[in-house]
This record gives sequence, C-alpha cells and structure tokens, in this order.
Amino acid sequence: MATNRMWRLARRPVGDIADEDLTWHEEPAATPGDGELLVEVRYLSLDPTNRTWMSDLPGYLPPVAVGDVMRGLGLGVVVESRHPRIPVGAKVSGLLGWQTHARVKGDSMFVHDPALDFSDEDYLGVLNHIGATAYFGVTEVAPPRAGDTFVVSAAAGAVGSLAGQIAKMRGARVVGIASTPDKCRYLTDELGFDAAIDRLAEDIGPGLDRTCPKGIDVYFDNVGGPILDACLARINLHARIALCGIISQYNATRPAPGPYHFPNLLIRRAKLEGFIILDYAMRFGEAFAELGAWMKAGKLRYRLDSIQGLENAVVGLRRLFSGENMGKMAVKVS
Amino acid sequence: MATNRMWRLARRPVGDIADEDLTWHEEPAATPGDGELLVEVRYLSLDPTNRTWMSDLPGYLPPVAVGDVMRGLGLGVVVESRHPRIPVGAKVSGLLGWQTHARVKGDSMFVHDPALDFSDEDYLGVLNHIGATAYFGVTEVAPPRAGDTFVVSAAAGAVGSLAGQIAKMRGARVVGIASTPDKCRYLTDELGFDAAIDRLAEDIGPGLDRTCPKGIDVYFDNVGGPILDACLARINLHARIALCGIISQYNATRPAPGPYHFPNLLIRRAKLEGFIILDYAMRFGEAFAELGAWMKAGKLRYRLDSIQGLENAVVGLRRLFSGENMGKMAVKVS
Repeated sequence: MATNRMWRLARRPVGDIADEDLTWHEEPAATPGDGELLVEVRYLSLDPTNRTWMSDLPGYLPPVAVGDVMRGLGLGVVVESRHPRIPVGAKVSGLLGWQTHARVKGDSMFVHDPALDFSDEDYLGVLNHIGATAYFGVTEVAPPRAGDTFVVSAAAGAVGSLAGQIAKMRGARVVGIASTPDKCRYLTDELGFDAAIDRLAEDIGPGLDRTCPKGIDVYFDNVGGPILDACLARINLHARIALCGIISQYNATRPAPGPYHFPNLLIRRAKLEGFIILDYAMRFGEAFAELGAWMKAGKLRYRLDSIQGLENAVVGLRRLFSGENMGKMAVKVS
Repeated sequence: MATNRMWRLARRPVGDIADEDLTWHEEPAATPGDGELLVEVRYLSLDPTNRTWMSDLPGYLPPVAVGDVMRGLGLGVVVESRHPRIPVGAKVSGLLGWQTHARVKGDSMFVHDPALDFSDEDYLGVLNHIGATAYFGVTEVAPPRAGDTFVVSAAAGAVGSLAGQIAKMRGARVVGIASTPDKCRYLTDELGFDAAIDRLAEDIGPGLDRTCPKGIDVYFDNVGGPILDACLARINLHARIALCGIISQYNATRPAPGPYHFPNLLIRRAKLEGFIILDYAMRFGEAFAELGAWMKAGKLRYRLDSIQGLENAVVGLRRLFSGENMGKMAVKVS
C-alpha cells in the first residue's frame, strides 16, 4: 500500500505564512469508496488564493479546517478507481490537496482527453482555473475594444501573462506591471506586450503616465492596494475594471483602506466587477476550446515556474507573495 | 429693460461654502442673439453637484470659472425669443444659472409640452435630471429583481425618494437611510418603503443588520463614506451597486480613503458602476414618459423643499449638506 505524504494546516497564519503553520504527515494512502478515485498527484498549482483559504475570514469558499490536509488544485494520474467512467491511468485535474495520494470523488474531477494531446504542463499553465480566469476576465468581465489601453498587474504571473496576451489578440494596447527587469523583458520581448512597468524600478504613477499616455480603458487587477489606486487615478471615461485578486491584502493583519481614487469610479462613470472563476465552472469547456486552439496555433504562451518536491510547497507559495515567481508557480510532486 | 440679479462665483470654496465665495450682482438683462432666448427664471434646482462645480478638481464638467454666474439647473418662462421654434411664453428647463434672467441658446433647453399638463413643481421634482437619475439608476445601472433587498442612502432626498419608489414598483424590498425621524416616517408611511434607518439615531451597521436580515442585493449610493462602507460589508453574492453621488466628500479638503470593505466586491463578485445622468441625456424622453405616467397614476410621489428668493440660494444649498432638506431642494426665484 502506498504512503500518502501531506501537509496539514496546523494553525491559521498571522501575516506571512510561518513554517509552523503547516505540519508534514505520512499515512497509508486511503482506499477509494464507491464513485471515488485514488489519484497519485503529479503537480500542485500554487495560487495566491491558497493563502486566503488558510484564513478564517469570510471568503468565497469555507476556510480549510485546522488539522485538515491543505486545500490545493493539482493534476495527477488515477491509480485506483471505483468510478464507472474514469479508468486507472486517466489523468485528472481538480482539488487534490497538498498530498501525494488523494482520495477524491470522481465526479469532482476534470478528466483530460488524451486525444487532444496536451501535456501536463499545458493543463497546469493554461487549461485550468488559470486560463479560464484570464479568458472570462478579458472576454466577459472587462472586455477591451480594439485600440483600448489595457493594463494588467502581476503581469508576469500565471493569470496576468495570459490575460495580457488575450487582450492583445482582441486588439488592445497592452501594458503589464511586473517587478523585475527580467519579467518586463519577458512581457515585451516574448509575449508581445506593448509596454511594461518595473514597479520596483520606477514609481507606479509616473510609470503609468509614461506607458499609458491616453489613460487606461481597462484594468485587470490582480493585486489591489496602491497599484489599483494609481490605475483608478488614470482611468478614462467608461473604463472597465476586473477585480480578479487582491494579493497585496492576503497577508494583511488588519483591514486596509480602499483606494483613495474611488470617487473616480463615479466621475469617470466606470464599471468595476469582482469575479471568481468558480462562478464560471460550468463554462470551462468554452474557455478550454479557445485557449487550446490558441496554444496549438502558437498564439498563447505560458511559462511554468515549478519547484521540486511537495516538501517545498510553502517555499513555493511564498514566492508568489515576494514576487519572485515568473509564470505559473507549481510544485512537481512526483 | 429688466434687471438681471445673479450670484457670481467670487472664489473657490475650501470645505463648506462661505458667504464670501459668491457675490451678488445686478445688471441689465442681456439681449438674446440669433437662436437665443431670454428666460425669466422661476425655480432653481439646488443639487449636491452644484458644490462640485465650484471646485477646480477634475469632474464630469469643467468647473465654473471664478467671476462667472454660478451654474445651476432651473426652469423659467421665455420672455424674449430669437429662436424659430420656441415662442415667448414657453416654459423651459435647463442650465439657466443662478440668476433671474438668463440668456441661453434655445437648442440647449428642454421645452415643456403644455398638453401634458404637468406643473412647474412636477418638472422640478421629477421630470428633469432628478427623475432621470432615479429612473436609469434603478432600471439600468443597478436593477433589483423581485424580492431583492434594495438599499438607498439620502433616501428622503430628491433622487433617493424616487429611486426607492421605483425599486418598490419593481418588486424589491426597499430600505431607506435618512437622518431624522420625520424623514423615516415619510419614507415608510407616505412613500411605501419597507423600512428606514435614522442614521443619527442608530449606528449604520446595526441599522442595516436590523432592516436587511438577508443582506443587501442592490445599493443605490448617494453619499459614499462610512455608509457605503457599511453597505459593502453586507452585500450578498452578485450584488449590484450604483454610485450616483458622494455627497460626504464634496466639502472634503483632503482625499478620503476608499471603503475598507472594498475587497468584498471581489469576494462577493459584485458589480459597481458610477453613472452621471448627462450620459443619458439623449434618452430622457423614455424616462419622462414612464415617470409622467406613474405620477398621473398616483404611483410616484415627490416633495418639494423650496426656499424663497434667489438671495437665499447658498442657504438652501447648505441644507443639502447638513441633511436638513426633505425632498427636492429648490429656490423659488420669481
């Protein structure tokens, strides 16, 4: 019988995640019941939202209970099946948790279609919640029109880098905000962004003035905080803002004030909408069809920033908050 | 020749409007040129936005220039006409300014149709920017569904009292926030609101908890500040928020932080939209047709809070900010 190695939430983090907030356990792998699978986890997706699930603040999902296996999205291979339509050997994605061997309900899994011939990395970098978030965020929540100035923060991150490329395909002028010269070069030289702002090398206000001389028509916000505020100060009439994430706040220990330029939402008659990709779960197929076609055509690129070994999951997660990652942060489990 | 008495902006107010910020002038009335009218002003509408026009902060219209006649909406009677289709004796509404005799472009005026048989007060209280704001705000910007909890601030004010009644006609449960017991009685006993919160008699948070046990589905915001924040703390999934005004900020001398519960817009996947009624100017006819029919049917009520004499315009305007007014604040000029 296989051994399941896992991270359990030991206590709720206060501020940055401490090593003691999670504890390592090794137990015999569980036996699947009716309709269930045992999945050997290959990759875990590390997402800013992992941090929000560790808190007991009101969120869009219940917090992870202290003592439970840490919640996480990932992909793996079915090694035991008591599900009528999912065979051993199938590859699946879903909420597998921070563990090497997950017992899950088969119906809760997204089963990869081998005929489509996508790699594990394609599923991890694009054909999942990440790609769907970028897709629906840009095509439905805050769609740019041709010629619009589209700004995205955390632009070299998993969602941001896809969102910018999709906006570009729709004819927008795309400006990315990132945190190193390398990331900025990646955006402009490899992904085709029109401009990038290295937010550690120049102040965000002047950076936006420099790269958005006609103001901002669409802002795809992954970070909140002072960057959102600086963008709100520069929105054009009838601007659209997609609130996708507020990573600047997830480690906060006290509530932060909202943006000082909030009144611009009225003065400029802007629309702002918060969205969480779970609300689009029934429509992932639409997104994957188009995202997959773009990948096959070489129009959509991603980069995986993976760290080896489940034992390093927390180290990897912290990189999202320090801004060290470039592209989709993941743990290679096996 | 008639004498035009007027208020000119003498300097930009800092904080509350001081008596010295406007100066009284008397001059011979102007002679209309080609396409122009001379209008004897009967009523001036006093609106929170008058205060924003006195500032040189970026706004949705250019600021009133120092030395110019104060900008204001109003209604009056044409006493001289050089416009081919607007005769002497016609009643008109529009930007007449804080003066007794306005020379205006005929094409910029809304001409009242005597066949419809509405009073001057009907035009002042409903069939103008006020009614249109309530109408499009509730029917398009943040429409409630039947059974939704709809909250409106400054609810006994001109726009708020109409917005609540329109939401009620659409099947919402309507809660108004106002500032005196009299206003709250007016909302519940005369306008049919389901509940009212006297924000000076109880804290806004507990008041909302008491009156909105199922949370807030739609919030029609006229005030911003702590009331907006308390509402954001209580929004339901997929809530809609119309930003119509931020009266709490118009006298501010420094930028205020945005709402602390801003992240709830993401967590609750809410939509927020700022709107300014000028954007709907081409569609006022639609609004007036429906608003007029509701008035004739006795389904839509308003109250005029008018002050006598142009010399008292500033006194009247201040009442909007102190919360002393009930219903549409206006100056009876002649």
